[in-house]
Amino acid sequence: SGQFFLLSGPCAIEGEEMALRIAEKLVNITDKLRIPYVFKGSFKKANRSRIDSFSGIGDEKALKILQKVSQEFQVPTVTDIHVPEDAALAAEYVDVLQIPAFLVRQTDLVVAAAKTGKTVNLKKGQFMSPESMSHAVKKVTDSGNQQVVLTERGTMFGYQDLVVDYRGIPTMQNYAPVVLDVTHSLQQPNQASGVTGGRPALISTMAKAGIAVGVDGLFMETHYDPANAKSDGANMLQLDLMEDLLTQLVRLREVVQNT
Amino acid sequence: SGQFFLLSGPCAIEGEEMALRIAEKLVNITDKLRIPYVFKGSFKKANRSRIDSFSGIGDEKALKILQKVSQEFQVPTVTDIHVPEDAALAAEYVDVLQIPAFLVRQTDLVVAAAKTGKTVNLKKGQFMSPESMSHAVKKVTDSGNQQVVLTERGTMFGYQDLVVDYRGIPTMQNYAPVVLDVTHSLQQPNQASGVTGGRPALISTMAKAGIAVGVDGLFMETHYDPANAKSDGANMLQLDLMEDLLTQLVRLREVVQNT
Amino acid sequence: SGQFFLLSGPCAIEGEEMALRIAEKLVNITDKLRIPYVFKGSFKKANRSRIDSFSGIGDEKALKILQKVSQEFQVPTVTDIHVPEDAALAAEYVDVLQIPAFLVRQTDLVVAAAKTGKTVNLKKGQFMSPESMSHAVKKVTDSGNQQVVLTERGTMFGYQDLVVDYRGIPTMQNYAPVVLDVTHSLQQPNQASGVTGGRPALISTMAKAGIAVGVDGLFMETHYDPANAKSDGANMLQLDLMEDLLTQLVRLREVVQNT
Amino acid sequence: SGQFFLLSGPCAIEGEEMALRIAEKLVNITDKLRIPYVFKGSFKKANRSRIDSFSGIGDEKALKILQKVSQEFQVPTVTDIHVPEDAALAAEYVDVLQIPAFLVRQTDLVVAAAKTGKTVNLKKGQFMSPESMSHAVKKVTDSGNQQVVLTERGTMFGYQDLVVDYRGIPTMQNYAPVVLDVTHSLQQPNQASGVTGGRPALISTMAKAGIAVGVDGLFMETHYDPANAKSDGANMLQLDLMEDLLTQLVRLREVVQNT
Repeated sequence: SGQFFLLSGPCAIEGEEMALRIAEKLVNITDKLRIPYVFKGSFKKANRSRIDSFSGIGDEKALKILQKVSQEFQVPTVTDIHVPEDAALAAEYVDVLQIPAFLVRQTDLVVAAAKTGKTVNLKKGQFMSPESMSHAVKKVTDSGNQQVVLTERGTMFGYQDLVVDYRGIPTMQNYAPVVLDVTHSLQQPNQASGVTGGRPALISTMAKAGIAVGVDGLFMETHYDPANAKSDGANMLQLDLMEDLLTQLVRLREVVQNT
Repeated sequence: SGQFFLLSGPCAIEGEEMALRIAEKLVNITDKLRIPYVFKGSFKKANRSRIDSFSGIGDEKALKILQKVSQEFQVPTVTDIHVPEDAALAAEYVDVLQIPAFLVRQTDLVVAAAKTGKTVNLKKGQFMSPESMSHAVKKVTDSGNQQVVLTERGTMFGYQDLVVDYRGIPTMQNYAPVVLDVTHSLQQPNQASGVTGGRPALISTMAKAGIAVGVDGLFMETHYDPANAKSDGANMLQLDLMEDLLTQLVRLREVVQNT
Repeated sequence: SGQFFLLSGPCAIEGEEMALRIAEKLVNITDKLRIPYVFKGSFKKANRSRIDSFSGIGDEKALKILQKVSQEFQVPTVTDIHVPEDAALAAEYVDVLQIPAFLVRQTDLVVAAAKTGKTVNLKKGQFMSPESMSHAVKKVTDSGNQQVVLTERGTMFGYQDLVVDYRGIPTMQNYAPVVLDVTHSLQQPNQASGVTGGRPALISTMAKAGIAVGVDGLFMETHYDPANAKSDGANMLQLDLMEDLLTQLVRLREVVQNT
Repeated sequence: SGQFFLLSGPCAIEGEEMALRIAEKLVNITDKLRIPYVFKGSFKKANRSRIDSFSGIGDEKALKILQKVSQEFQVPTVTDIHVPEDAALAAEYVDVLQIPAFLVRQTDLVVAAAKTGKTVNLKKGQFMSPESMSHAVKKVTDSGNQQVVLTERGTMFGYQDLVVDYRGIPTMQNYAPVVLDVTHSLQQPNQASGVTGGRPALISTMAKAGIAVGVDGLFMETHYDPANAKSDGANMLQLDLMEDLLTQLVRLREVVQNT
């Protein structure tokens, strides 16, 4: 139908109740708006700035919650993996394996994900050019898997800021469908506190620009209580604001598709 | 009416015939689409990379052509100034004085422009943050002139590239209406040849993102024969493509305004 | 003799007494260390972030103080110019005309400086590549003046930081002798306050790296009381620390020259 | 004695003969110059741009060659690891475990390296600030290992270039001894070919600046035939040039230490 798809959910799976609660709300909204929806949740957080940051509730426990979300709401799910062994394990529970931006140059990891036959979502490294993602895509397709998606999540701009270069979206669409990760694109890394900052007020700005340039999908982390989320609270979208924003974006998409 | 306005024309005034020919076409299109229109043309080019680049046909001669365009088509005009004395001279012929991005930190120039009482268009320096433009705006308003507009034209990204940070547009709208200069934002400066490069295929991408985030105006240089334009040919929009693009943008604007 | 030369003095000429006091101290130190020395002082500050920043004591008054310093201590002097008319005026009083980094793309200004026959010091724009400075040098030499020097003063790195790319120094030495402006390279522009910040503790680090890679000269602003200097206080070197630093640099230079 | 130490060797262990040949030469030079020396070689290459790039001769085979170098020449060795299981394996054969720049945010990997009790060399991510490396160091020390070293290897500057910010060296010395990786700092990533470029002519420039600002160690990849090296040939130092360069650096170090 030409509609954009949505990858959304909390940053990390903190527990079953919170996952189901967020999924239910998102399923209701996306059903109503006819947006193809994939539930997102990390089963572990392996690349935190600080050793004392939250890193997960247990791998299998979190993966089973992802599976439960999928069964209960009949939606596909996506999670990120960090070492090659994660690939086969996660593939038992989820539909899309995501390669974190910091790890997208790790050939073994990308190939392990590709070999599961699941869709692979490659996040563009904050240190990579849009053009250089063609090599990452090739690692997936050369492994015999044509199901590959790319995600833009900003590029380093000095030490403490990320910028989204919208020129890169049509460039990367030459290689695979492109998702814009709106919430991580607004991060401000390397803050003195060791906790990544963010600018959530700009979520709507970034998302609208993405739809206008024709992204295939959007990625937005959300929580009913961002201030108390166990990771990335600084740049999530408040769950209550999701429906209004998506409604606007669907209308924008309609015009973009028809011009 | 909520419509965006357009600043458009050739880079430099190369002669009367070319200026009138471009203006006529743009006036026809913008009348049809009800886009408030300002004709743009530089009366001299003072900041070329190379000493042998084209620098103009003579200041007064070019300014008189701008005036003729204004009278013939009943449209306001804009030109850029480079030294304080230019301000009073140009103000006799045009309606908007534009401060080039490289010069926006020159207090004497900004104040001279402000004191003419004409609208001042301050281009954000490629080396400035959106927030720092508040100081430039204050130099105009402290000079007793409230007619000030800001223009985004990209920020240095490494040595040979510019990136448009769309987060800066709502930031700068806190200080003044904001124009997106689509064509210069696509420049690739500091090329080995001494001639600035560009990526004109991305003009539509950049413009759509701008409309989506709510810019107040667009700036696009155009020429009926970009390959033979005497400056900035590498990133102008072919004049024949203008109507289609503006038609799409008007439709996009309508949705953005109503959501 | 292979010694590096030094351009040093206060940022702005605030008055005769302060200029003579700083010059006397610097002349004594550089005589002792046999460092060729040029007294530096701005006769006006035309590119301040804020309209209420100090902009000078009067052009001719400041230029006459520069001349007095030159006569009293038998040293050449350097000052920066901002519009083409400044060139001939300043050339009556000083030996080196400096083009500010923001203005180095202004052809009329560079050519006006070149035509005075004085040595021209072109500061690399914060938005320019080392290679692109070859075009700026050519504007001077094509005007019949072979006395040209280049100064590195850092390149934009994100919105609020500058970085010195030492690779650029040998690159620019292909075009002209290269000076490293240590103190401005440590600026942190676009701070929220509208007052440029700095990191003076790193002055010695930057200067040593410059000598090690073989710069021809150093530029360092200094003041006996940086905290009360009327501009750029945040990144000047305390005058009392100058002798120790230069002594170390002279010893370093000696080894660099002999290896 | 205040001498800097050297980590040097080929990029990848391509075979026993080449490893021994390079080690012998480097041991001879560093013995003569009294430079503490660590032989470097990667036992696998896991983060190549392209899937068809060389990735190694077999993990254990390469590790055994590292061990043989160590035994034959009585020098410590360093290799890089890519997944947590690599840590215990490599620790059986080498003395220093190096965390690649792309992977320095992977907590599990850093902790696994720390727990072996071996010295951990953390390379600063191309996407990290010097200050943010304090968190990476803390992950090692909180794991009960105080043997940690940091390595600067450049920071992303636009899409296709890296810049070394020498200000970061004293900053990082607040956390641990700092090594400058001269050869990787000269890489130019994300080239269209999928093969990282480089500027080997600048190796001496970068190294001298590092010594001048007081680095604790240098890292330089070398090969007797860089053009035929199986990885990173574009920016290695020709082995025949090593002795002259180190001789100059030792003399420079002497002055830096005594001023």
